[in-house]
Amino acid sequence: MNFGFLIFPGLEELDLVGPWEMISFWSKHAAGPENCLMVAQSLAAVVCDKGMAINPHVAFSNCPPLDFLLVPGGQGTRREVDNPALVKFVADQAKHCRAVLSVCTGTFILHRAGLLTNRKATTHWASLERLRELGDVVVVEDRVVRDGRVWTSAGVSAGIDLALAFIEHMAGEKTAGRIQLGVEYYPSGRSYGMMHELAQAPVYVKSWGMREKSRRE
Amino acid sequence: MNFGFLIFPGLEELDLVGPWEMISFWSKHAAGPENCLMVAQSLAAVVCDKGMAINPHVAFSNCPPLDFLLVPGGQGTRREVDNPALVKFVADQAKHCRAVLSVCTGTFILHRAGLLTNRKATTHWASLERLRELGDVVVVEDRVVRDGRVWTSAGVSAGIDLALAFIEHMAGEKTAGRIQLGVEYYPSGRSYGMMHELAQAPVYVKSWGMREKSRRE
Repeated sequence: MNFGFLIFPGLEELDLVGPWEMISFWSKHAAGPENCLMVAQSLAAVVCDKGMAINPHVAFSNCPPLDFLLVPGGQGTRREVDNPALVKFVADQAKHCRAVLSVCTGTFILHRAGLLTNRKATTHWASLERLRELGDVVVVEDRVVRDGRVWTSAGVSAGIDLALAFIEHMAGEKTAGRIQLGVEYYPSGRSYGMMHELAQAPVYVKSWGMREKSRRE
Repeated sequence: MNFGFLIFPGLEELDLVGPWEMISFWSKHAAGPENCLMVAQSLAAVVCDKGMAINPHVAFSNCPPLDFLLVPGGQGTRREVDNPALVKFVADQAKHCRAVLSVCTGTFILHRAGLLTNRKATTHWASLERLRELGDVVVVEDRVVRDGRVWTSAGVSAGIDLALAFIEHMAGEKTAGRIQLGVEYYPSGRSYGMMHELAQAPVYVKSWGMREKSRRE
């Protein structure tokens, strides 16, 4: 099994590395996909939005057929939706993928590759309106959204929860639990400055806040 | 202000990129440290534990004086504690740092650099006993531990919570809230397979589990 992670200039670092950690941990310690590969248009180093520079493992031209493909988001997606080579790569690979996943604004790349027509999907909270304006996506304000073999998630850190939900789906809850324990993903759940009460916060964040509030009382 | 992130072969990807995302987001969007730099012994690409390959921004020899230094963990730390050049780099920079932070088993590198004698600290749950055996560290089973200007965290994903707590300390709760909202860090808080009930789970994970249990009931 080959799990590909699409990389491109201006991707948001944690969008990529949250799921990369979970999936590659699954691969190494719990019989997940044999090969986890970062794939880019060429083999040149990819500079992410905040300046981390990654060397791809493979280029589009020598990428093996992927069983799974994950697309991160970030400011770079605004340019890459208009990159025909990248959009074609996603569309072509998706034909034989068992699942295609995106984090944050990676959703807009899946859309451009024709994978979201009349499907449920989500994105970073600040881009939900932009996703609705596309007109053919059923926008769901949840942290992780699955519609058949297409999985999307909310912004940046949500890719970690996306990956755990995906691992549970593929390999069962116990395996997902082993990964969660391995990476010690028992987050504090604190809301700094109660910023989750922002009017534009998605539905799931508002209910997350109410849950945390009741916990503190 | 210069915030350095130490990188070395075999580091655990999310140990590094969780805090990198938070700190560099702070830098770019909320007046955090001007320069976020990944620093390695040489400028050669650094291959992480799961295979991600990163190009350092600077080498030890041309690294500017750092105001802050973060050391990730990973299997590579088992070798790097015996790398005199790396340990000296950490010890030398620490002399003028306003804060030194570590994630997961990065704690063992801080210890070797002489930064943890009689200090409170933590590490990945599976290495807590090894930390106790050092004999001169006051081991605390919490997710984030601060002792003066030295901050340590539990395993892998805990670096995200470490970074938010650090940003709050440096710039206030509202700024930490802006970063949390920006990266949409409102995690699901689910425990897959109730693995947090493992006998060796640290104290904070057990209380996390009880909190989640009461929430579900």
